[in-house]
Amino acid sequence: MAPQYAQSLRFRLPPLLFFLQTGFIVVFIFYVDIEQNVQTKQHAFTNYYSEFQDVHVMVILGFGFLATFLVRYSFSGAGFTLLVAAMAVQWAVILNGVESMYHRGKIWINMRSLVVAEMCTASSLIAIGAVLGKTNPVHLLLIALLEISGFVLNGWLLQTFLKVQFLNTIMLLHIFGAFFGLMLSWVLYRQGSEQQHEKEKIDRKTGLFSVMGTLFLWIFWPSFNSVLVEVDHLDRGRSLRAVYSTYLALAVSAVTAAGFSVLTSPQGKLNLFHIQRCTLAGGVAIGVAMSAVHLPWVAMAIGFAAALISTLGSRYIKPLMLFAFECHDTCGVLSVHGLPGILGWMVQLLLQIADSDDLTTAVRFAVFHICTLLITLSLSMILGIITGFLLKCNFWRPPQNKKFFDDQAFWDFPHLGGKN
Amino acid sequence: MAPQYAQSLRFRLPPLLFFLQTGFIVVFIFYVDIEQNVQTKQHAFTNYYSEFQDVHVMVILGFGFLATFLVRYSFSGAGFTLLVAAMAVQWAVILNGVESMYHRGKIWINMRSLVVAEMCTASSLIAIGAVLGKTNPVHLLLIALLEISGFVLNGWLLQTFLKVQFLNTIMLLHIFGAFFGLMLSWVLYRQGSEQQHEKEKIDRKTGLFSVMGTLFLWIFWPSFNSVLVEVDHLDRGRSLRAVYSTYLALAVSAVTAAGFSVLTSPQGKLNLFHIQRCTLAGGVAIGVAMSAVHLPWVAMAIGFAAALISTLGSRYIKPLMLFAFECHDTCGVLSVHGLPGILGWMVQLLLQIADSDDLTTAVRFAVFHICTLLITLSLSMILGIITGFLLKCNFWRPPQNKKFFDDQAFWDFPHLGGKN
Amino acid sequence: MAPQYAQSLRFRLPPLLFFLQTGFIVVFIFYVDIEQNVQTKQHAFTNYYSEFQDVHVMVILGFGFLATFLVRYSFSGAGFTLLVAAMAVQWAVILNGVESMYHRGKIWINMRSLVVAEMCTASSLIAIGAVLGKTNPVHLLLIALLEISGFVLNGWLLQTFLKVQFLNTIMLLHIFGAFFGLMLSWVLYRQGSEQQHEKEKIDRKTGLFSVMGTLFLWIFWPSFNSVLVEVDHLDRGRSLRAVYSTYLALAVSAVTAAGFSVLTSPQGKLNLFHIQRCTLAGGVAIGVAMSAVHLPWVAMAIGFAAALISTLGSRYIKPLMLFAFECHDTCGVLSVHGLPGILGWMVQLLLQIADSDDLTTAVRFAVFHICTLLITLSLSMILGIITGFLLKCNFWRPPQNKKFFDDQAFWDFPHLGGKN
Repeated sequence: MAPQYAQSLRFRLPPLLFFLQTGFIVVFIFYVDIEQNVQTKQHAFTNYYSEFQDVHVMVILGFGFLATFLVRYSFSGAGFTLLVAAMAVQWAVILNGVESMYHRGKIWINMRSLVVAEMCTASSLIAIGAVLGKTNPVHLLLIALLEISGFVLNGWLLQTFLKVQFLNTIMLLHIFGAFFGLMLSWVLYRQGSEQQHEKEKIDRKTGLFSVMGTLFLWIFWPSFNSVLVEVDHLDRGRSLRAVYSTYLALAVSAVTAAGFSVLTSPQGKLNLFHIQRCTLAGGVAIGVAMSAVHLPWVAMAIGFAAALISTLGSRYIKPLMLFAFECHDTCGVLSVHGLPGILGWMVQLLLQIADSDDLTTAVRFAVFHICTLLITLSLSMILGIITGFLLKCNFWRPPQNKKFFDDQAFWDFPHLGGKN
Repeated sequence: MAPQYAQSLRFRLPPLLFFLQTGFIVVFIFYVDIEQNVQTKQHAFTNYYSEFQDVHVMVILGFGFLATFLVRYSFSGAGFTLLVAAMAVQWAVILNGVESMYHRGKIWINMRSLVVAEMCTASSLIAIGAVLGKTNPVHLLLIALLEISGFVLNGWLLQTFLKVQFLNTIMLLHIFGAFFGLMLSWVLYRQGSEQQHEKEKIDRKTGLFSVMGTLFLWIFWPSFNSVLVEVDHLDRGRSLRAVYSTYLALAVSAVTAAGFSVLTSPQGKLNLFHIQRCTLAGGVAIGVAMSAVHLPWVAMAIGFAAALISTLGSRYIKPLMLFAFECHDTCGVLSVHGLPGILGWMVQLLLQIADSDDLTTAVRFAVFHICTLLITLSLSMILGIITGFLLKCNFWRPPQNKKFFDDQAFWDFPHLGGKN
Repeated sequence: MAPQYAQSLRFRLPPLLFFLQTGFIVVFIFYVDIEQNVQTKQHAFTNYYSEFQDVHVMVILGFGFLATFLVRYSFSGAGFTLLVAAMAVQWAVILNGVESMYHRGKIWINMRSLVVAEMCTASSLIAIGAVLGKTNPVHLLLIALLEISGFVLNGWLLQTFLKVQFLNTIMLLHIFGAFFGLMLSWVLYRQGSEQQHEKEKIDRKTGLFSVMGTLFLWIFWPSFNSVLVEVDHLDRGRSLRAVYSTYLALAVSAVTAAGFSVLTSPQGKLNLFHIQRCTLAGGVAIGVAMSAVHLPWVAMAIGFAAALISTLGSRYIKPLMLFAFECHDTCGVLSVHGLPGILGWMVQLLLQIADSDDLTTAVRFAVFHICTLLITLSLSMILGIITGFLLKCNFWRPPQNKKFFDDQAFWDFPHLGGKN
């Protein structure tokens, strides 16, 4: 079967890539231009560019290498992340510019639009985390494009109808990506997946590569959470607060994840999966709750709680999801992005209510805030299910079960040495 | 024995982590806040934030991956560095803020306090380098907390009684960390360690991971040495000079280390250990001597001398330390941080004396400068010995000799594939 | 033979290193100083320093790890890159400052001179890519010094006689390095090299290390292309346009390289070599064409075309070069730097002609532009051939054929574990 399958990708992937890429270039010819009035924003650029690159490093190196942990799927992990991200940022620039195109006739490229595009891409990479290894690159591209479309639509709905701030809609990327990916994985679920796949393993070296990805995410997360703060507020203080809060939340998160990992292990040992992923839960939760967090200890408490639910989720809910709901979650996106994201949402609700002067404001905020979550959850899950059914179609030549988690289905190694 | 040992960590590490972490959060509730008057420091932030992140990358990725070189201890190398650093920065923020708390009632978090905290953390990671693989994470946490306490105390003593500049006290981190770690390793020495431990080996891949750590340190060292210069002087020129000096010293250091590595090898081959560590000696020495270095060639000469003593130290003094003084130094911190640090101190002394206008100033400076070193050495060695005896206590369940340099004692790999 | 050979390096490499390093320090004593009037350039520093570091990361980590792909040659790949770069930047600083020394009596070190030195180093590392694994470190050092000398001479000729802008001469580094390296490899060609060398292989882990190098280059390339733009123009807009153009060209390049890699593979599989190198072709081409590219879609089209010729070149021209012209190109520098560089040159010509107001300007520009390429090609190829004959000399003890692509000839691993 393998050669047949491989041949078929030849007439699926390149046509799709060239069709999309040509289409994007055509759109860019007619509708996209580089923003000219940068002279006045000279200072802004300076700050932005290095923070933009931090985000860029997180998306390409962080998510890319985090996905290399499977022993036989590391090239795909890093390579497909690059491919998907390169395509997705172009699509995200176009989609995010549709409104500006409608009003001003053009989509403008500037630092902000690229940062936003990278964040949308991050959202799609989270969704892909749930189905990693069980799909082919054609699937991954379609997932990324559909997920980004849904995420941009979600942001537009929230901004237009619920007057949610732009920054707050962007930070829902964790929740949107995670639940989109979970539903997708649920629809794509196949009989027999409840057993551990023989290739779904790590080894010492791929584990270490993915620790590197984790560390890139961990180190640059303060930039991820703070880069867009200034845009809306032009107040450096808020941006700095976002940096400090994220930094502290992540530090506490790393300590707490290690603690619960050892505590919940019968042998009292650290679990690599927890150290790799649950250490990041604090960054997710604080990102969502950011606008309401003013004190450093609150950020630390959020980091503690996020790492707690993330570790317990990885330990107990992930296997439950597989057996009870037939939903296999390769990278554990529910525990790493889904649950901490909802925790962040909840903390934001509580803090805003506590900060409110009168009951009316509080109730009003609570209603809007709950609607925000419900819309995001429904949209992500519905679109995840639709995408799943779309991808089930045999036209896309999904990989056979026994080719899951295997680079060999997609990569040609003429110079590969030995039996490695 | 293994399961017994592993079980015991379950009731040592998590309680310690939760106790410390809860304690830190409580301290943050009452005494720590984010500095508000950032509006006026808008420009400073810009510079600082990206240099802060360079330091952050050095501490987490640089030191973390430098410690992955042991073939069976790489997860511990990277993972424990993250855990220790996450805990240590919080402790360092608190300790460094004690004086401000006394005077202004609060500990203020700003870019500078985080950078200083990262540097204290770097100091503790250097100390840990001497005992890497021979300790458990509980030990490492205690070492880090005690080392940082000692280092902050040392800085306070020097500033208060000898009027040493803040920047100069911080740069003693290499000397303090190295001698603290050496004494610690001496006290923890066990019979039988004079033979090469069967697991104290590198392989091609872990060697390459640790080369990556080296390169992160090598690349970002100019930021490490320059980031705090501006704080004290508000003169961009001095900060730039620190950048150029460090850059040149490191370049010369890399060339020189390679030269002496080949020259002292009977087969005329490069030694990976020298390339990984002695290339960094120039950064250490120039960091300590910084305030007295004004000409680029002086920086280059320091880089040359530092790499020379570092390479010769690794080749000849390291085995001597083991056999003669029963002191096993896993990462060679004496040759990499200790000796080059003292070289830097000596160069600073000579340059300051040469720069002095009259004899009185020169003698006065020399006396103060010698006292600075003596205090730092005594304090670090005494505290290292005390910490060592504290850790010898069986309560902390030290790993057995045969579990040295082995991830398996601490990490649980349910998905680990093959025999890797 | 092996011990004999290894012994001989002991009396070749260290004397060369110490002679050169001492020489450089002596030159620095008499002629080099740090630029003092930085107060007025305060703002420039801020931008520069973080972009300088991006370039630094690309040269050391990007090129270094890209060269680790050979299964038995990874230490040499990363280690020799560091050694060569550390030496080459010093030489480049001196050479680039000769003119300033002539006029102002001193060579001044500032951010710009270091960035330019790093770019010259990048040029020499490209040349080295063609002969990687078939040379010893003494060769590599000589190649780097001669290549940089030639490249600086080429820039000086073009600026002096053809009035080419400084930025445009620097960006020819890809073309100069690639053709220098190709000629070198042609001269050094040995009988028997037409068969695949048994050690010229990758494995999963070294492949992944070099993907990491690729990603560092891919992520930071916008800084590489934009950092020197501002120098000549003091117009932030142009620098920003360079960032956006490079970013878009690289994104399209990654997508296109993947598409053509699958399309030209009989099994419809991705080729790691293409993903590692051809994804970067867009950055090369846009770098050369930069000054004429004003619209984002043009950048994207350049990225598409560059990845196309790069992928086809790797697939079809690389084997042809080996069989027909007896030129073995380890890293495929012709397809990755040479051809995309010439494409960029051609696009610049076409765009400039299209932008010209009248025929005279257009013809004039075309003549100058064609001369630029001809001079660069001739000089690089002639110098490559001369360098090749110089290195053929047995005095430098070239490695035997069977020691090609093997770390063991140069590295001493006392602690190396197992059979890895």
